Amino acid sequence: MPSAGKQGADFLQLSREDAPSRGLTGWLADAIRTAIMDGRLGTGAPLPATRMLAGDLGVSRGVIVEAYQRLADEGLVSGRPGTGTRVLGVSRPAVGSKEATGVGVVFGNLTISESSEAFEYPQVSGSREVPGSREVPGSLEISGSAAPGPLLVPASWRERAEIDLSPGVPDLSGFPRAAWLRAERLVLERASVADLGYGDPRGTVALRTELAGWLARTRGLRTGPGDIIIVTGVAQALALLARVLGRHGHGEIAVEDPGSRGARDDLAYWGLRPVPVPVDEHGLDVSELARGDARAVLLTPAHQFPTGVVLAPQRRRDLLDWAAGADAVIVEDDYDAEYRYDRAPVPALHASAPGLVAYAGSTSKTLAPGMRLGWLIPPPGLHADLVEAKYASDLGSPALPQLVLARLIASGELEQHIRLVRKRQRSRRDALLLALREHLPAARVQGIAAGLHLLVTFPGLSGPGTPGGPGGSAGSDADLAEAILRTGVLVHPLSWHRQRPGVPGIVLGYAAHTPGRLHEAARRIARVLA
Amino acid sequence: MPSAGKQGADFLQLSREDAPSRGLTGWLADAIRTAIMDGRLGTGAPLPATRMLAGDLGVSRGVIVEAYQRLADEGLVSGRPGTGTRVLGVSRPAVGSKEATGVGVVFGNLTISESSEAFEYPQVSGSREVPGSREVPGSLEISGSAAPGPLLVPASWRERAEIDLSPGVPDLSGFPRAAWLRAERLVLERASVADLGYGDPRGTVALRTELAGWLARTRGLRTGPGDIIIVTGVAQALALLARVLGRHGHGEIAVEDPGSRGARDDLAYWGLRPVPVPVDEHGLDVSELARGDARAVLLTPAHQFPTGVVLAPQRRRDLLDWAAGADAVIVEDDYDAEYRYDRAPVPALHASAPGLVAYAGSTSKTLAPGMRLGWLIPPPGLHADLVEAKYASDLGSPALPQLVLARLIASGELEQHIRLVRKRQRSRRDALLLALREHLPAARVQGIAAGLHLLVTFPGLSGPGTPGGPGGSAGSDADLAEAILRTGVLVHPLSWHRQRPGVPGIVLGYAAHTPGRLHEAARRIARVLA
Repeated sequence: MPSAGKQGADFLQLSREDAPSRGLTGWLADAIRTAIMDGRLGTGAPLPATRMLAGDLGVSRGVIVEAYQRLADEGLVSGRPGTGTRVLGVSRPAVGSKEATGVGVVFGNLTISESSEAFEYPQVSGSREVPGSREVPGSLEISGSAAPGPLLVPASWRERAEIDLSPGVPDLSGFPRAAWLRAERLVLERASVADLGYGDPRGTVALRTELAGWLARTRGLRTGPGDIIIVTGVAQALALLARVLGRHGHGEIAVEDPGSRGARDDLAYWGLRPVPVPVDEHGLDVSELARGDARAVLLTPAHQFPTGVVLAPQRRRDLLDWAAGADAVIVEDDYDAEYRYDRAPVPALHASAPGLVAYAGSTSKTLAPGMRLGWLIPPPGLHADLVEAKYASDLGSPALPQLVLARLIASGELEQHIRLVRKRQRSRRDALLLALREHLPAARVQGIAAGLHLLVTFPGLSGPGTPGGPGGSAGSDADLAEAILRTGVLVHPLSWHRQRPGVPGIVLGYAAHTPGRLHEAARRIARVLA
Repeated sequence: MPSAGKQGADFLQLSREDAPSRGLTGWLADAIRTAIMDGRLGTGAPLPATRMLAGDLGVSRGVIVEAYQRLADEGLVSGRPGTGTRVLGVSRPAVGSKEATGVGVVFGNLTISESSEAFEYPQVSGSREVPGSREVPGSLEISGSAAPGPLLVPASWRERAEIDLSPGVPDLSGFPRAAWLRAERLVLERASVADLGYGDPRGTVALRTELAGWLARTRGLRTGPGDIIIVTGVAQALALLARVLGRHGHGEIAVEDPGSRGARDDLAYWGLRPVPVPVDEHGLDVSELARGDARAVLLTPAHQFPTGVVLAPQRRRDLLDWAAGADAVIVEDDYDAEYRYDRAPVPALHASAPGLVAYAGSTSKTLAPGMRLGWLIPPPGLHADLVEAKYASDLGSPALPQLVLARLIASGELEQHIRLVRKRQRSRRDALLLALREHLPAARVQGIAAGLHLLVTFPGLSGPGTPGGPGGSAGSDADLAEAILRTGVLVHPLSWHRQRPGVPGIVLGYAAHTPGRLHEAARRIARVLA
């Protein structure tokens, strides 16, 4: 198992690997200062507790304390005992105002050098990001994410599932019920009459403000409350985008293959034809994308679903170049970015090129899918049309849950919760890996470094994994999944998430199950394969 | 002011007027027995407290007690002290199963005689239902409802409004914060992991079950949990219907003129052309509807927005005949049916012909618009497609608020809240009527018997009320509204809600304001008109 420090910090996507071997304090202070000056850390934004950040980066706590002190000396942050360190106000140019004033359908307003520069900092180190399909569980393998929406698995399958390993469901037993109730009480005490009325179709300003800070801190986004549209989950973000892209003349959208079946079906329902683009060990094949006609693409760059690959740095640059040159829209589904176990954080694509990227995230993986609470940060040229589409869809999202979430972010309880769940999910992943190693020593396991599921492929399985849906035509891995179901374990065959034939495999969601049940599931799967 | 008893009861839409002069107890017992036998009152459904029902019907409490006792003797209900009277289980044929097994687009499966019979009982008395535009505030004038969605009033208007009389907003200061928090605590204590996960796209079974009983008791619907789709407000119900009707070949939908501007815009956004059909003192002109090509119609039969007219019994029958004969869909927006002040309840159209009617309602007027929580009960032939559309829109509505609402219905707290708010809103209506009588003695006031707003028309105002939107072209009442705005009072000109020219008027929402502010608003409006 890797050491804790190697995973890096969500905070500003800091990674120990990017730091010079000497001068750690100066490096850290520089990084935070830059984030304050360029607006990613706004006035009042909390810096992480020194002990936590030290743990994330694998450095001594003294390094963090000294860096914070240096910033305090410069008047940039204020640290009072008991309240933590917070950013003080600085006068700086409004962030994102250039993009925000754009009119019409403007995507190509960032030059290539600008976008690649933005991408260079803060950056993940090169070599560790390029994953393959190695056979070594527990290695620094990259990835693992979860489906943007659940697949409608046939009821007959669900009924037979004693252990449901469908991907995309976090550990819900850990839902922070007490914190939620506390926050709700405060919200109900303080909510104004206007808070309960017909509100801004973009969502409550309280949540949009907190989110802007949260996404800046944890995902590198430079965004303001006015840019964010609160939606009922990533599924609605995709539905609205499909609608608006259709109105802007898009008839198709490129999607990853394999990729999320749910997302693909959702887009198709709303009239955008999903065009498959292959995913290899570096992520989406951008040159294949560029050869096609689609001028929009949906992808999961931080950890591809379901393979768990991270989009390689060169591919990221190529993708942004393509989008800028082709006047295209990149839809970034980033919604389980919070669960990294043993790799450095990858900043969101949106952080590099807000004018090209529609960024979507949700609380489905951090709190619960039943929350149906997410956000969409579109390029400026699509913003007004998306707000109109949201208004025409439901006038806006429910107010109370938004206000509660805002409070959980502001109080630090959301972050606390994520740290807790991450720890538990990591130990579940470890348990499943251990069990697979024991019962299926020859299995090829991918996508273990992050997310809520892993992928086991069977390159030697007779017959290719032919695309099919639940209940539809299917290749060999669907037969395998059906055989596994007969033992009471529900897994997704990889072919459910494919449009074109490829290596067979099964997707195992582990986050919702105890180590004991995961061990039992692995035992049963092995019995079928034996 | 009318006597309390004349308003009748929400419960089974009972009206004293329908009872024989002798034999009240037998009449009441019969009505309840019928509702138990035909499934409107399911096992466990609570009967109203005897004191309340006596008050609603204007009869002595002894009548109610005796009727309940008779039913208890028959083994149909059980009354235990302190817990109230509840319906016991009876074996009866499954309700609605005939419709529920329908396949494809089936609307015309009810014969005319069936539907008119269903409408005859329980019925509102004839003559009181046919309203005109009388000048007598305080008469048994019919109506008053609220817009299905808020109009996007220009920000410049809102900023200048000291007193915002936009219709459609209830008294939000009365939001039951304590009850909501209590229910939320219980929900969080007891919610299962499955409750928090990706759920049924139709909504949680707990809420759908409670709603089926609630709508049967208060609106006469015969529906089951499986028929109901939980949506984020009536706006989403309309968006989903527009989508699905479009797929079923509908290019247009008839709407009331005048009628809700918000609903009309919503339908148009999703591709259904809204065709105006005039509204007169009997409601929608069904013969004009029948002359047109539209095979779908949206209307507010219980109290038309914004005129406040109730659809007359003959028109109801004609409408159902037309729909059955033309294979058409009736969309019934019933979402502020809870606020009647001095008229008998009108059962929902859906109660007469579930195979022809898509019924939509919400908590926007009973709790708060910010809840974004509503329901759609479509004809069986559209059900599967609407569930698919809901799933593709957002996978389903947020779970926690659904579970909380289910609990508030089950505990009786929702009903308690509605009674409280109704009382307060009635006194606000009375205050506004009094002020209008004082300051504008010649005003024609309509739609006072129910709802959250009233309508003042000016037949003599020079120039017709020409259709226009906020900020668009507008006739004389828009000029008037603009002049009123200069005194700090925001009202909707009637022409905002018109598609074709008609009598000018202004719509005054009173529910969100104290009597003092309403008096002040009337004073300022009178000053402009003087």
